[in-house]
Amino acid sequence: MATKKVLITGAAGSIGTEMRARLKERYTLRLLDRLPVPEPEGEALVCDLGDLAGLEVACAGMDAVVHLAGNPNGGGSWESLLEDNIRGTYHLFEAARRQGVKRIIFASTNHVTGYYEYEHIYTTPEMLARPDSLYGVSKAFGEDLGRFYVDEHGMGVICLRIGSFQPEEAVGKRGGDRILSTWLSPRDCAQLVWRSIEAEGVKFGIFYGISGNKRAYWDTENARRLLGYAPEDDAEHFV
Amino acid sequence: MATKKVLITGAAGSIGTEMRARLKERYTLRLLDRLPVPEPEGEALVCDLGDLAGLEVACAGMDAVVHLAGNPNGGGSWESLLEDNIRGTYHLFEAARRQGVKRIIFASTNHVTGYYEYEHIYTTPEMLARPDSLYGVSKAFGEDLGRFYVDEHGMGVICLRIGSFQPEEAVGKRGGDRILSTWLSPRDCAQLVWRSIEAEGVKFGIFYGISGNKRAYWDTENARRLLGYAPEDDAEHFV
Repeated sequence: MATKKVLITGAAGSIGTEMRARLKERYTLRLLDRLPVPEPEGEALVCDLGDLAGLEVACAGMDAVVHLAGNPNGGGSWESLLEDNIRGTYHLFEAARRQGVKRIIFASTNHVTGYYEYEHIYTTPEMLARPDSLYGVSKAFGEDLGRFYVDEHGMGVICLRIGSFQPEEAVGKRGGDRILSTWLSPRDCAQLVWRSIEAEGVKFGIFYGISGNKRAYWDTENARRLLGYAPEDDAEHFV
Repeated sequence: MATKKVLITGAAGSIGTEMRARLKERYTLRLLDRLPVPEPEGEALVCDLGDLAGLEVACAGMDAVVHLAGNPNGGGSWESLLEDNIRGTYHLFEAARRQGVKRIIFASTNHVTGYYEYEHIYTTPEMLARPDSLYGVSKAFGEDLGRFYVDEHGMGVICLRIGSFQPEEAVGKRGGDRILSTWLSPRDCAQLVWRSIEAEGVKFGIFYGISGNKRAYWDTENARRLLGYAPEDDAEHFV
């Protein structure tokens, strides 16, 4: 079976940098960012999410897109979220559709349901959104848009609600107990991404992206059952 | 008790025109549209949803806003939906918040969950969005934004997923069986709106806006229970 071709957007970002290093053996990568990608593991393109035509070029010939680009800032301004996470995500989905890309892995966020956390409510992906920020609202939009592209256009879309993505060595310095529940290690993140690419029978899904944390309060049962996710890490060893 | 002051946006539209005629005895109305409102039942303002400052002026002193303005077109272009239904709805919520408005009635749509209908799945407001159009996605955004304004800012937001709004005399001419399930008569719509304004104990809710249709496949139980909605019409008499 030929190696799949995978576009990673936001490839110069913190998650993108880890993902391309960890997925380069498994896939033929194309890397996109609005900034030049340092030391790229494949063809690298500079393109802003505002540039639909440029995104079409980037999507051409790809088997899947891992869409990490966007404003990752929980306190981001409305204008930047509107441009990068709403308009930009529409551009990405539309470019992928026009180019016949069959599968998108969309980097969503736990902040789509952040108000359940504030109220100490254990959360599953079947519960309605309760965003804790305009950032969370903007990612909820991406999930709904993804569902529409699945139903209307037959694409496959997997939404990963990323928890607290931190390299092992950075966790201890951050302090606080929250990460014991919300940690996503880079290797577990990479596993989630490649399992999402490979689980072609799953046409749409929303999954919390966290390691196998003993203290988790977001349900990852569906990731284990539908994607075969088997996390290798657990934040408990930081205690 | 003083008469409440209520702003209706989209007051020159088809639903707005019926609502202002039917709510003028109950409330002191202020009417807003991007076009001049013909024969207004109160103070009338011309303002586009792109004009945040103008919306603030419109919201000043209001007890509630009934937000009907926006692109109502199931086939609307992405650009118009982005401007009117996404950016415009944000402007409306933000203007209301800044002016201390306590309650917004948001005109959402059954198209937020239209793909369940295509698949003949009985639908409740607790189910995740499955939009049937970019229009449906844009209204799902409004619902999520509303939830955020409730949780974050303590506002009250009621989302009414309007069905097929048609005056009685227009229904027969439209033909087709769908409206037997999806009809919302003007007087039932007006009742839903005023009950949503009055149900101050309900801080957030999503309700399907249809008459008491025997053939309904959208659940209105929560509207009856939480808002006291008691529809007077049923499309069955069109059979």
